Amino acid sequence: MNHLKPNVPLRGIIPSLVTPLLDNDTLDMKGLENLIERLIKGGVHGLFVLGTTGEAQSISYDLRRRMIEETARINQNRLPLLVGISDTSVRESINLAELAAKHGADAVVSAPPYHYAPGQVELAEFYLSLADRLPLPLFLSNMPGYTRVNFAPETIRSIARNKKVVGFKDSSTNAAYFQSVMTTMADRPDFSMLVGPEEMTGELVLMGAHGGVNGGANMFPHLYVEMYHAAAAGNVETLRRLQKIVMQISTTIYTAGKSGSNYVKGVKCALYLLNVCSDYVATPFHKCNQPEAERVRAALIDIVKQL
Amino acid sequence: MNHLKPNVPLRGIIPSLVTPLLDNDTLDMKGLENLIERLIKGGVHGLFVLGTTGEAQSISYDLRRRMIEETARINQNRLPLLVGISDTSVRESINLAELAAKHGADAVVSAPPYHYAPGQVELAEFYLSLADRLPLPLFLSNMPGYTRVNFAPETIRSIARNKKVVGFKDSSTNAAYFQSVMTTMADRPDFSMLVGPEEMTGELVLMGAHGGVNGGANMFPHLYVEMYHAAAAGNVETLRRLQKIVMQISTTIYTAGKSGSNYVKGVKCALYLLNVCSDYVATPFHKCNQPEAERVRAALIDIVKQL
Amino acid sequence: MNHLKPNVPLRGIIPSLVTPLLDNDTLDMKGLENLIERLIKGGVHGLFVLGTTGEAQSISYDLRRRMIEETARINQNRLPLLVGISDTSVRESINLAELAAKHGADAVVSAPPYHYAPGQVELAEFYLSLADRLPLPLFLSNMPGYTRVNFAPETIRSIARNKKVVGFKDSSTNAAYFQSVMTTMADRPDFSMLVGPEEMTGELVLMGAHGGVNGGANMFPHLYVEMYHAAAAGNVETLRRLQKIVMQISTTIYTAGKSGSNYVKGVKCALYLLNVCSDYVATPFHKCNQPEAERVRAALIDIVKQL
Amino acid sequence: MNHLKPNVPLRGIIPSLVTPLLDNDTLDMKGLENLIERLIKGGVHGLFVLGTTGEAQSISYDLRRRMIEETARINQNRLPLLVGISDTSVRESINLAELAAKHGADAVVSAPPYHYAPGQVELAEFYLSLADRLPLPLFLSNMPGYTRVNFAPETIRSIARNKKVVGFKDSSTNAAYFQSVMTTMADRPDFSMLVGPEEMTGELVLMGAHGGVNGGANMFPHLYVEMYHAAAAGNVETLRRLQKIVMQISTTIYTAGKSGSNYVKGVKCALYLLNVCSDYVATPFHKCNQPEAERVRAALIDIVKQL
Repeated sequence: MNHLKPNVPLRGIIPSLVTPLLDNDTLDMKGLENLIERLIKGGVHGLFVLGTTGEAQSISYDLRRRMIEETARINQNRLPLLVGISDTSVRESINLAELAAKHGADAVVSAPPYHYAPGQVELAEFYLSLADRLPLPLFLSNMPGYTRVNFAPETIRSIARNKKVVGFKDSSTNAAYFQSVMTTMADRPDFSMLVGPEEMTGELVLMGAHGGVNGGANMFPHLYVEMYHAAAAGNVETLRRLQKIVMQISTTIYTAGKSGSNYVKGVKCALYLLNVCSDYVATPFHKCNQPEAERVRAALIDIVKQL
Repeated sequence: MNHLKPNVPLRGIIPSLVTPLLDNDTLDMKGLENLIERLIKGGVHGLFVLGTTGEAQSISYDLRRRMIEETARINQNRLPLLVGISDTSVRESINLAELAAKHGADAVVSAPPYHYAPGQVELAEFYLSLADRLPLPLFLSNMPGYTRVNFAPETIRSIARNKKVVGFKDSSTNAAYFQSVMTTMADRPDFSMLVGPEEMTGELVLMGAHGGVNGGANMFPHLYVEMYHAAAAGNVETLRRLQKIVMQISTTIYTAGKSGSNYVKGVKCALYLLNVCSDYVATPFHKCNQPEAERVRAALIDIVKQL
Repeated sequence: MNHLKPNVPLRGIIPSLVTPLLDNDTLDMKGLENLIERLIKGGVHGLFVLGTTGEAQSISYDLRRRMIEETARINQNRLPLLVGISDTSVRESINLAELAAKHGADAVVSAPPYHYAPGQVELAEFYLSLADRLPLPLFLSNMPGYTRVNFAPETIRSIARNKKVVGFKDSSTNAAYFQSVMTTMADRPDFSMLVGPEEMTGELVLMGAHGGVNGGANMFPHLYVEMYHAAAAGNVETLRRLQKIVMQISTTIYTAGKSGSNYVKGVKCALYLLNVCSDYVATPFHKCNQPEAERVRAALIDIVKQL
Repeated sequence: MNHLKPNVPLRGIIPSLVTPLLDNDTLDMKGLENLIERLIKGGVHGLFVLGTTGEAQSISYDLRRRMIEETARINQNRLPLLVGISDTSVRESINLAELAAKHGADAVVSAPPYHYAPGQVELAEFYLSLADRLPLPLFLSNMPGYTRVNFAPETIRSIARNKKVVGFKDSSTNAAYFQSVMTTMADRPDFSMLVGPEEMTGELVLMGAHGGVNGGANMFPHLYVEMYHAAAAGNVETLRRLQKIVMQISTTIYTAGKSGSNYVKGVKCALYLLNVCSDYVATPFHKCNQPEAERVRAALIDIVKQL
């Protein structure tokens, strides 16, 4: 049974799950169970594992496989399960997709092969060839900050002619670009348009996007679900109120430290303080140190009051 | 008489005017008059000259001075007049500001000194020192694509302690960043938060921004004014409808050619076809060639039908 | 038996081998044998497999393991063998290093974890922790165009305090930077300083670098070896003469096509025309098409005349 | 009398002069005289004013004009005088060039219009049109870090068909690229190929470049002249010895502070300590503070010993 219906876009909040870790090579199994139950209880519309928030590129293939298996086992098909298969090697992407399919995942998500930065023509060819070899529907993932390539709107349109390609998730933070893609895909209401950065999910859902792949939903799933519903319903007042809290999370928890890993380490630190899972962050990054954790704790206290 | 009231943010649509040119060194005076009258009639809330849309960096200082004088003369103080003074040299910026003040402009707009890319500390020092030497209120302009530096939200907050600094215009296209700045400036309701890219002005005004510095308003001032009012009033349905037209303009007229100057040359070509002003584009760029102009004409016909 | 002597830098031409492929998942075994025998006969000073020229990130882990095993088998310890272990996951890097050690490789080469761009502090920590867990000496590889991070000279110096770290290979093309690193490492004559781009290997060896990790040596090993010897001996006239041929290779064979993969596809096309191995290029890139191959053929004819 | 001979490339060390300042708007006249006399006595082969080292973009047009006049007056035609005319506006570039011609300058130097980043086609058109309107020979200046555009070798070749275009100065630090341009221009021995970064001038002159436009020569003209002669004569041993001192300057004096203005402020601080001119640095940057100046002093003492 696949949760994704033909010709209906995936909608709602699909959190990009952190990968709870005890160390670089060991899943925090209890933490993962806590996390998934919390998300389901919070009303999210899907689960996305092995994204950038999930530190997929930092952990071994064994652990990535383990993460797929365990998430599928815990989820028990209660929610649509999306699995990140981004890799520099097509073969490794396909291998992960096949494992995901075997365990009942609903779709896979793939950013362009990082390391080499392909052009638009090669991007289109790459995805068309990949889609045909995948056992599951495919979401394109745009992460130009990581991959050094940005999907041109026309490239998305051309790739989406293959019906295996069912949606687009944009983590570029460029709202003008996202609007251009929505315009280019306006005659494809079945094609799911999802926003990565939670800071701009509300406004873009209000303008027609289908949902958000938000990392903050790991901590406060209900808040993001509410924000989504307010935006989808055009309830401006509620949206503005919830946006304030979302921005407070973004400007406090995600800036706990100084390094480029702030976001993931802030989320993991908060989850630890909320008794959900371990705060371990995979190499080459680190979990919050004591002063950083204190700042996260203070921020959390203030945020929780408003929920 | 200054149009900007103390402790009240500037709101609405302030088009970034094109500079109508007959050639590299000659203003199209009739075109400039047509343009300004059209904008005033269209209901815009201010005029911004010598921005990037105005090709300020491509034209000589004589022409920039001329543009200030003539715009002021035609405007006759009917609307707030903002003048771009961005330069690599502080002295030249101040010179332009003094001329603007002499001719009754209401404020100046300054992007960080391009060429050299200063750090955040130098950015703050630069603007604090500049503000003190300016005869007019100052709007900060963020254009990281041109200046290779992005104002950190805390830098804006620190600069805005100087009451001569009255607002921020962001042309970064990064909506998550804009939301962060709004959050950082939340206790300063007097500080004007303006959006550059028209593709994302509606959604951000709806979320609390004060207005848009939009180039498309050169062509269709009334459309952008309507969009602003719909967004400011939280009228989602109207906003979505108007956003479709704004996006149609963006994805047809601004992509007439292949080069980096598409946007300005598309706007100028459309203005020419609308009998407003000349389509000449300053060196090193070019006006639309015949096939490009034909595409703009076809796009215009389709757009005008919907207005 | 390890070819790398304690306190003696690795010197000379260590070609970055292409990975001969029949398709995305199959080594061209005969081609690999031809290639290695050709390189050894050409007098090169070492073999480097699974670098960017070897398309390591495009091929599967199975194939990378296969490449290590087969290269080691064919080499039979005749030349120092360096193995690329660059990965986003430390665990996968270590796994490859252990396999390399098992098959008698002499050292491993690692670029910073791409995808995430770590800062200098994290870079140092990462490599110090990695070095301790590796069974073989380590060369740092600088590829800022791919990894979005550049080793600060002081970071290299600090990492090199660990005696497992024996050298630095720079593919940045920035000669001023390379000179800075040489200056910073001047009191470490045992630390091997290697140049990636062959266009600047000669001049930098002449100024004190120890050698080149050049892709062009796949095609013409003897030429690059001669260039190295001329440069190391300070034989300016010979160097200038050979540099002309090296530049002819660079400006003809590496620019056969239009895309970002030109370099690898040009080298592989030339190797095919020289009857060394297959010209297959891994996804997402392509081998030369017919007109591109004709240009390579014409260039080869002209180059071979001068050897 | 023009110092530039037809069909003979300009050769040697042409220092990019600092602009000695008492404050943002006032030349340090005595300092400028000291500086020029020192350079002439040091044996340099030309003077280049109003480059990036000269902070041209930071100072007013009045001051730029003043700098041209005063330099010409002091120089008294003793050395070839090159004047930077880089601007975003063609008109302002031409104005400066005309002033330069009037005062007897020998050539002008122009980087692509910063702010807007033109494509290759527009770059070629821009320079061909500019050259025709200039009263003096033109050197192209490549500064991709500032202008966000890199001259393709073929673009240089195409522009150089205009005989008013007599040379190319590259400040990209990319030695592989410089070698490519030399290869592309190999049949134009009259076209002057000059290197910006002094850290790589020696090696590239040794490989065939004609000289260096080096900022360090402000401080130690004789050292750079010696380095040039050693390189041009293929005297490897001397070159290696002098390169060590050049690198010591680069790694100590240019890194006195933390900000992006280090290089200019380090040179000006050293010139002040050497009793040549003021250490004032134009807004938005600062002169060395006390601890930075102490580091420069210590470095100078060590450097001077070796000269």
